[in-house]
Amino acid sequence: MEPTTTFDAAELSPVDTYKLLTGLVTPRPIGWIGSVSADGQRNLAPYSFFNAVCADPPTVLFSAGRPGRLKDTLANVLETGEFTVNIVDEAVAEAMNLTAGEYEPDVDEFELAAVTPLVGNAVRAPMVAESPARFECVVTQHVDLGPPGGEPSNTVVFGEVKALHVADRVLDGTRTRPDELAAVGRLAGANYARTADSLFEMVRP
Amino acid sequence: MEPTTTFDAAELSPVDTYKLLTGLVTPRPIGWIGSVSADGQRNLAPYSFFNAVCADPPTVLFSAGRPGRLKDTLANVLETGEFTVNIVDEAVAEAMNLTAGEYEPDVDEFELAAVTPLVGNAVRAPMVAESPARFECVVTQHVDLGPPGGEPSNTVVFGEVKALHVADRVLDGTRTRPDELAAVGRLAGANYARTADSLFEMVRP
Repeated sequence: MEPTTTFDAAELSPVDTYKLLTGLVTPRPIGWIGSVSADGQRNLAPYSFFNAVCADPPTVLFSAGRPGRLKDTLANVLETGEFTVNIVDEAVAEAMNLTAGEYEPDVDEFELAAVTPLVGNAVRAPMVAESPARFECVVTQHVDLGPPGGEPSNTVVFGEVKALHVADRVLDGTRTRPDELAAVGRLAGANYARTADSLFEMVRP
Repeated sequence: MEPTTTFDAAELSPVDTYKLLTGLVTPRPIGWIGSVSADGQRNLAPYSFFNAVCADPPTVLFSAGRPGRLKDTLANVLETGEFTVNIVDEAVAEAMNLTAGEYEPDVDEFELAAVTPLVGNAVRAPMVAESPARFECVVTQHVDLGPPGGEPSNTVVFGEVKALHVADRVLDGTRTRPDELAAVGRLAGANYARTADSLFEMVRP
């Protein structure tokens, strides 16, 4: 076996643990989460602790860090029970990255990133018109995670997908064309990965 | 805005919903989950409804489908409260794919895929010696998902990572070298994506 380092999780700092987890659990899909506060303030931010977890009913989840105060997205989503997921392709990657900064609650990241908010039929949370696929989601439950006896460090939000809006060019019925979708995956630090030009096939036995 | 199709989730079959979710939420990291039953039967199977969700404590989750009976992995994990996560790179991708078939409970997928089981210090569940990174995990909770009033269709298993074993060649302290890790991501159908040759950088504002 090749030379290996063993890390005992109990002896790692949260920062080192975060670096190892985000550097190894890759590539992660990006949920670009749209939300709106009860008084109408829009928010948009990317999460890569994000995935689909069920098709019946269609369910996605994302995990939001809680550095002291609730981030705008998490506050909005828990307040309103609604959010949108916007899929990130190469065309919107730079705009997505702009919304990854730390901004005050009164900043509208749709304006900041010059993307178009779009409200669907199922929820009031805004979608990104420029994304190749958009989901309207209703919160079904949330799970707090954190150190024993301490404040939560993350909240995992489960959402049921009520409607999906998908660009026709990426669809083949209910299948998708991955080369046309050109989704971007998250790695660690400043690193991302393209999918359109790195595809390969393996047929399940 | 480009031509778009809207799908009302209430009118989609679970199969079509699955195709859309797996075709759009991409690329997904692959958790190659090792487990052992209470009576010693090893199991190994890949899950792409998988991600990290917290660094403090280090937590991953995977969602296992429940097609009628419990799959071997889920049965073992709920029975023993333990599992391992093995990261899939290009070198082990074919072996991973072999373990994605439907096999009887008495099949040892380590033997089937000709990979080496390795038992660590924290849990009895076996790891894949050939994987570039391996996590030993203890179940902390699980969440059943399914249609209202019906049987669960998926179970989301949360695991706390007790130890991480990482090949030295991919490490730079607690950061990783994504080109050296060469992780493989899951798309839909028979499609996968490489990361080593599709990297790009965007610095967070």
